[in-house]
Parts: sequence; structure tokens; C-alpha cells
Amino acid sequence: MDADELRGRFGAARVARLATVRDDGRPHVVPVCFALDGDSIVSAVDAKPKRSPALQRLDDVRAHPDVCLLVDHYDDDWSRLWWVRVDGPARVVAGGAEHAGAVARLASKYRQYRDAPPTGAVVAIEARRWRGWSAT
Amino acid sequence: MDADELRGRFGAARVARLATVRDDGRPHVVPVCFALDGDSIVSAVDAKPKRSPALQRLDDVRAHPDVCLLVDHYDDDWSRLWWVRVDGPARVVAGGAEHAGAVARLASKYRQYRDAPPTGAVVAIEARRWRGWSAT
Repeated sequence: MDADELRGRFGAARVARLATVRDDGRPHVVPVCFALDGDSIVSAVDAKPKRSPALQRLDDVRAHPDVCLLVDHYDDDWSRLWWVRVDGPARVVAGGAEHAGAVARLASKYRQYRDAPPTGAVVAIEARRWRGWSAT
Repeated sequence: MDADELRGRFGAARVARLATVRDDGRPHVVPVCFALDGDSIVSAVDAKPKRSPALQRLDDVRAHPDVCLLVDHYDDDWSRLWWVRVDGPARVVAGGAEHAGAVARLASKYRQYRDAPPTGAVVAIEARRWRGWSAT
């Protein structure tokens, strides 16, 4: 996959998995909705029921800024498997213009966010290293 | 979700995401096929095209045995979202009876492994902490 295809497949996905490192050094992984623009990825803490894991994620990012995001496609026909992974540093954005811009990007991708914009912090990731694999 | 439901939803999934920590302290996440039996989870390094990331995963596990596995369900109807996550220590099993047993468990779940059993190392994970979330 070339650079355009990596970003195209990744950006079109509805969900990614965000891996972080806890302050005790153990890994942590959560599903996230996200929006990609160039090499900028944003995600938001949205729903009350996910409050505790969401806060864990923010604590992780503050302690260990390097994160890893994965988009993958599963199919029982294994010749159709593929994944795209990206590594880079992340920041927690709690408010201000950057937060508002991120929420607008998320709302542009997800109708659900237009109905109920996320009010929690944004995780802003700078995609530095793209990797991909496809069975075919 | 109670303990049975956590294991039931997790075990029935065809793919999970395995998060590990690299020797440089950065997180790493890959999609994996797996088989669950009680609190024992096995996965295998299978295909040549994934050779390099697969080896990374084994190096990670040897350096940092604590891993995190996620199964999640995405739906554009966000009232249907759920995930199950499990943490625990992992070991690399390169051969012997334990390797053969793990391959048999994987072949029992995946027809694809019956046609072409994985020959690479097995990652054996002891599920110590289960967590789950459901939107409903």
C-alpha cells in the first residue's frame, strides 16, 4: 500500500483501536471513533458510561504521549484481510479553538456527533509512521 | 456484563486486537485470531507476509509479558456498541505439547487453520482481569 492508500483506508474506517501505555507500564487498548486529516488524527471522550476507561486513556496519554492506532478489516475469507497502523505522539486538548475544530471534524464524519457533540477532552495524534499490510 | 457474558462475547469474536509494549516503551497493537478456553487465550503467528510484525509481537511479549486484548463491536447505531477487554501475562510457546494443543484449539475455531495449521510460535495469555462495556 502506498501513502495515499494507507491514509485512505484508515480515514474511511468508522472505528480504530487506540493503544496506550499505562503509568505502570502495562498496555491499554480501547475502540475509538476518530477523524483523519492529512497526518492529524482526533478522537474525543464522549459518553458518560465510558467515563472511567476514558479518563484512563487521558491519564495514559499525559504520562506516555506515544500511542499506536490500528484499523483492520476482518473477513472469514482470509485473502481479504488487511490492516493499517499508525504511530505518533498524542496530546490531550481540553478546550479552546483546537478542541472546537476537532469536534467539528468529528461531527463532519459522524452524524451521531452532530446530534450530540462530545463535550469531553480531545486526544490529538500526530501520525508520524504509517504501516500497512494486505493479504492480497 | 457478568463473567459468563464477558467470556461469551469475547470468545465468540473472530478477531481481537492485541496490545503490547515494545522494548522502547511504545505501545504496539495488531489484529489476532485467537481461541478462548476458560481464562486461557491462545493466538499463533501464522502467515509469512506478516512475518516482520509477528516477530515484533513475540519480541514485545518476551520483553514485557503483560498484554491487553480487546474485542469490540462497532455499529453506526451507537446504542449497539460494546467491548470486552482482558489483561494478563503472556508467554511465547515455540513448540512441544502445549504448542500442539494451542494449534488444535485454533483449528477447532477456524476452518482456515484446519486447512493450513500455523507453524509459528504461539502466544499464550492468562486472562486475569476482565472488563466490559455495553451502550445498553
